[in-house]
Amino acid sequence: MTEPLRVALAGIGTVGAGVVRLLEENGALIARRSGRPIEIVAVSARDRSKDRGVDLSRYTWVDDTAALATLDGVDVVVELIGGADGPALTLARNSISAGRAFVTANKAMIAHHGIELASAAEARSVALKYEAAVAGGIPVIKGLREGTAANELSRVYGILNGTCNYILTTMEGEGGGDFADVLAEAQALGYAEADPSFDIDGVDAAHKLSILASLAFGTVIDFESVAITGIRHVIAADIAEAKALGYRIRLVGVSETRGDGLFQRVHPHLVPLSHPLAHVSGSLNAVVAEGNFVGRLLFEGRGAGDGPTASAVVADLIDIARGEYSSAFAMPVAALIQRPAADAGERSGKCYLRFTVQDRPGVLAEIAAAMRDSNVSIESLIQRGAMPDGSVIVAIVTHAGPERCISDALERLRGSTSLIGQPMLMHILGD
Amino acid sequence: MTEPLRVALAGIGTVGAGVVRLLEENGALIARRSGRPIEIVAVSARDRSKDRGVDLSRYTWVDDTAALATLDGVDVVVELIGGADGPALTLARNSISAGRAFVTANKAMIAHHGIELASAAEARSVALKYEAAVAGGIPVIKGLREGTAANELSRVYGILNGTCNYILTTMEGEGGGDFADVLAEAQALGYAEADPSFDIDGVDAAHKLSILASLAFGTVIDFESVAITGIRHVIAADIAEAKALGYRIRLVGVSETRGDGLFQRVHPHLVPLSHPLAHVSGSLNAVVAEGNFVGRLLFEGRGAGDGPTASAVVADLIDIARGEYSSAFAMPVAALIQRPAADAGERSGKCYLRFTVQDRPGVLAEIAAAMRDSNVSIESLIQRGAMPDGSVIVAIVTHAGPERCISDALERLRGSTSLIGQPMLMHILGD
Repeated sequence: MTEPLRVALAGIGTVGAGVVRLLEENGALIARRSGRPIEIVAVSARDRSKDRGVDLSRYTWVDDTAALATLDGVDVVVELIGGADGPALTLARNSISAGRAFVTANKAMIAHHGIELASAAEARSVALKYEAAVAGGIPVIKGLREGTAANELSRVYGILNGTCNYILTTMEGEGGGDFADVLAEAQALGYAEADPSFDIDGVDAAHKLSILASLAFGTVIDFESVAITGIRHVIAADIAEAKALGYRIRLVGVSETRGDGLFQRVHPHLVPLSHPLAHVSGSLNAVVAEGNFVGRLLFEGRGAGDGPTASAVVADLIDIARGEYSSAFAMPVAALIQRPAADAGERSGKCYLRFTVQDRPGVLAEIAAAMRDSNVSIESLIQRGAMPDGSVIVAIVTHAGPERCISDALERLRGSTSLIGQPMLMHILGD
Repeated sequence: MTEPLRVALAGIGTVGAGVVRLLEENGALIARRSGRPIEIVAVSARDRSKDRGVDLSRYTWVDDTAALATLDGVDVVVELIGGADGPALTLARNSISAGRAFVTANKAMIAHHGIELASAAEARSVALKYEAAVAGGIPVIKGLREGTAANELSRVYGILNGTCNYILTTMEGEGGGDFADVLAEAQALGYAEADPSFDIDGVDAAHKLSILASLAFGTVIDFESVAITGIRHVIAADIAEAKALGYRIRLVGVSETRGDGLFQRVHPHLVPLSHPLAHVSGSLNAVVAEGNFVGRLLFEGRGAGDGPTASAVVADLIDIARGEYSSAFAMPVAALIQRPAADAGERSGKCYLRFTVQDRPGVLAEIAAAMRDSNVSIESLIQRGAMPDGSVIVAIVTHAGPERCISDALERLRGSTSLIGQPMLMHILGD
């Protein structure tokens, strides 16, 4: 087949402009690889006059983005508008029901509506693809959907948000400060959004994790049951204590099957230096998959930015041009199962606990008693002399034990007048 | 489609038994993922009576392996016999010409005959797949064929032989010895073959590299032009000097485009600790691809063994069951180009040179003069006191410069009575 694959592009921000540039620069090579050219035929965005650094004059401009769904002469609609609902979702539904293949980088929409869209795509026998929605340029959707498809996977986890990883690795560098200072710096440099909440509070990583879990475990996407904690409460002392103990702090999304249940958590973790995720620095992303035959696989690369994201979007287009696609979530939607959220309390692991406390007698005894009474066994405890404000830091690493014991201990300490602010709990990534 | 995909298995050694076991254990899950069951219908190997730890009684046994190519009721032939030519190649040719899909883990055969087989597969519109031929369980063939397909790649490189990596990382561990001692240990433990030459002399890695280069650069496989040096001449002093200088030694296969040419080299390299390949330990493999939009991607995992290799073989079968396949080398064979071997002399980089020399005056001056006269600029030089046998080690790291200057300097020193044995040259992996 040498007919071109005809693409309509909805949304021309940074990533959209990247897709245009990629198809211009690498077009001839892509035509060799696909066996046919991939051509943008129409583009649409809110503001036609905006300078996007790419020449759009050769493409048909469509004012009404929604009209791309049914525009004549289009094989694939590429959605780069963003947002879980609204125009992006309408465009997805209408494009698919009009029999067009659909490619998106929209993790929020896939996390919330991916299964519905996959059903519709199946019914119309069209492709639904979203490689760019998770981990940017890293082909991890393909890795799980195809690369590890022969395996029963027990665990999939990774560093899924570049902004958080940039902030955490900056905090651990020379002269790294507290979270708020580093965030402000990152914002000034353009590495964090003006409203960074989706990133730093872990929602973005949770969207991605819920998608990976579905692919890995053959489950219906269940974003709602992801337990989410961001990195807002990580302080410089945590970074220092973790380092002293042989760990680095990373925001890690973890999903695993536990009995009949599905466990999904996004949480700052202490990662041992012996684990490859400890060496993932700056804005890089990385995903680990553990399968019963393949063992442990690691995929690492750039998780955001126009170039890597455009690379993933166009990889999807190449799959479509080659005719290499079928079920969006690795199996027909009817074969996906619903698993209940697993009870974290039964999960066993090591934890890091940090208390900021009053500098007065008896405080340590109070904490130690709470641990003892909840059957939490302490592996190491560091108490550091008074901070500038007179408070004291107590950092504990526990032996492996059921997580409910930790919750229980924290419950015992709730409201204690010895504590200043909330204790910080971080899980320690196990092997 | 719910008809089973019917598989004939040729060769039931470790990997073959792994494939049987995998399809038994994960069969139900694979049927969900593929939309249809994948079933072994016939098996063939040399010795029917051998105990392979799996029950083969439920499959049709075929004494004459060659007959699998035309056996009725077979959709795919899986070849796990090995060897570049002979029965494996005959089976490949006959299976494809009989219109059967063909899956293999045979890197030697693909490196030597892959393009011929791909042409035949194209002519018959059948699948030819070989994920297991490179880097075992790591889906790197898929990663390059599909994951990075939107990119012009500038360089693909990696650690492609687990035996060499095991030996090198053991040498750098506590009490690690010289190459020969560690090899003997590895053989005793079953981590190295009784005849380890293919592994330790770099031929196995070169087979794999030549396949990756074809996928990455759209070139005809050119195994003959890979410059190969193995790890036989790495001594404990090299490991120690590399460590002192901030490097680890890894056998790295590197391929890159240079002007019109294709550069392919397998060579022990000094890898800076800041590079992820420095942290790939034991028998793990890792591959790095650098693209003009995606940036740097890393794939890491287990590169050998029955489980990981079976995982890759069955991933290929799942692609076939799903109908997701086309050109074996990422583009139609007619689109592949032939590039001449690039002249390494024009390549610029830093090098490590180690000389074992006589302990007498003037030797260092002789070496330094050769460097100066060949325009090799020295970044650091370490001379260590006499070894037990009275010889002296001189280790040099050069500044970046053309490789031909290094060759020239070594040529000047050839035959010098100051030198004991051959100098050791290792390239330093650049960013």
